[in-house]
Amino acid sequence: MAKEPIPTAKGVERLVEALRVLPGVGPRSAQRMAYYLLQHDRAGADLLAQAMAAALARVRHCARCNNFTEDEVCSLCRSSRRDPSLLCVVETPADLAMVEQTLSYSGMYFVLMGRLSPLDGVGARDIGLDRLLARASDGEVQEVILATNFTNEGEATAHYIAEMLRARKIKASRIARGVPLGGELEYVDVGTISQAILDRRGL
Amino acid sequence: MAKEPIPTAKGVERLVEALRVLPGVGPRSAQRMAYYLLQHDRAGADLLAQAMAAALARVRHCARCNNFTEDEVCSLCRSSRRDPSLLCVVETPADLAMVEQTLSYSGMYFVLMGRLSPLDGVGARDIGLDRLLARASDGEVQEVILATNFTNEGEATAHYIAEMLRARKIKASRIARGVPLGGELEYVDVGTISQAILDRRGL
Repeated sequence: MAKEPIPTAKGVERLVEALRVLPGVGPRSAQRMAYYLLQHDRAGADLLAQAMAAALARVRHCARCNNFTEDEVCSLCRSSRRDPSLLCVVETPADLAMVEQTLSYSGMYFVLMGRLSPLDGVGARDIGLDRLLARASDGEVQEVILATNFTNEGEATAHYIAEMLRARKIKASRIARGVPLGGELEYVDVGTISQAILDRRGL
Repeated sequence: MAKEPIPTAKGVERLVEALRVLPGVGPRSAQRMAYYLLQHDRAGADLLAQAMAAALARVRHCARCNNFTEDEVCSLCRSSRRDPSLLCVVETPADLAMVEQTLSYSGMYFVLMGRLSPLDGVGARDIGLDRLLARASDGEVQEVILATNFTNEGEATAHYIAEMLRARKIKASRIARGVPLGGELEYVDVGTISQAILDRRGL
């Protein structure tokens, strides 16, 4: 008996294919997601499709800090309660949210939306360093605080930006490295301890 | 200096929330997905939103086999090349696709879209056993092949269906358990070996 192609609904197939744009989602989990949504949560899937379309239509980058916003300039950049002399550079909106949660910073931000990564073809242009430079040169900013991650790429990015700012005589600083709060030396990696010793401060 | 709420674009927030309907996606990965799509793949996100809306609008269950389809009755159930005397019961469309890939079965299917799972509140109704019974009683079906998984729930489901069919005098069979092809006894679990011995066949 001759065989026909394996029967699948075209719409399901396309949905599985489309779900693969999500980072970390392979063919198996895309299929599982599609089946799950169609079988058990059509209302949720509907909301997701709508939220995605709405976000694509409305969300853009703040003209000042580059963070996601639905306005020309985001509410944080418009706020009169923030200190305009400090500019904190972070890699992502999630990093900005973390810094805000500390309640210990009240300056402005610039969100790179990435980090320098030559191997992945991400250069100074792609993370808006020209715009950062223009922002830092507005006459109000006195100090740029580099709060990129302490990964190789984050460190290289901070270094690159610091050099760039030095050439323009703009003061740059880097958030401190060291043993985390509650950290026990026995369980902290030697690199961190070594840095904590180098960066020790007087009491 | 008084603090304001952490600034986030409403549209991003709603998208992150909506992405959590996906199985296996927690708050962190939902956020990562939203940022990634908005920053790096708006075209892909657009296609995903469209594919999802299209699937929700068009995909439904085949009236005969319960698989996903865009028609009243799916192409496999309409095919004149399939053997209508055999009905293979599987848990999911993915299982059906696997059986088809073997090229060794040319009968019909019934897709449960789940399995009995009393602890999760999934009963006979939820996996369409009333419809399966009606389907198996159409006068053409001679044998129902139970191809649910060999998990506890899959086994219980097969057992339950077999009992149900027996009461109607419909022949039921279960696909074979045993050592998988290429399997080495040393690396197969004892339960499987024990079943393979019990289910041994004459040569």
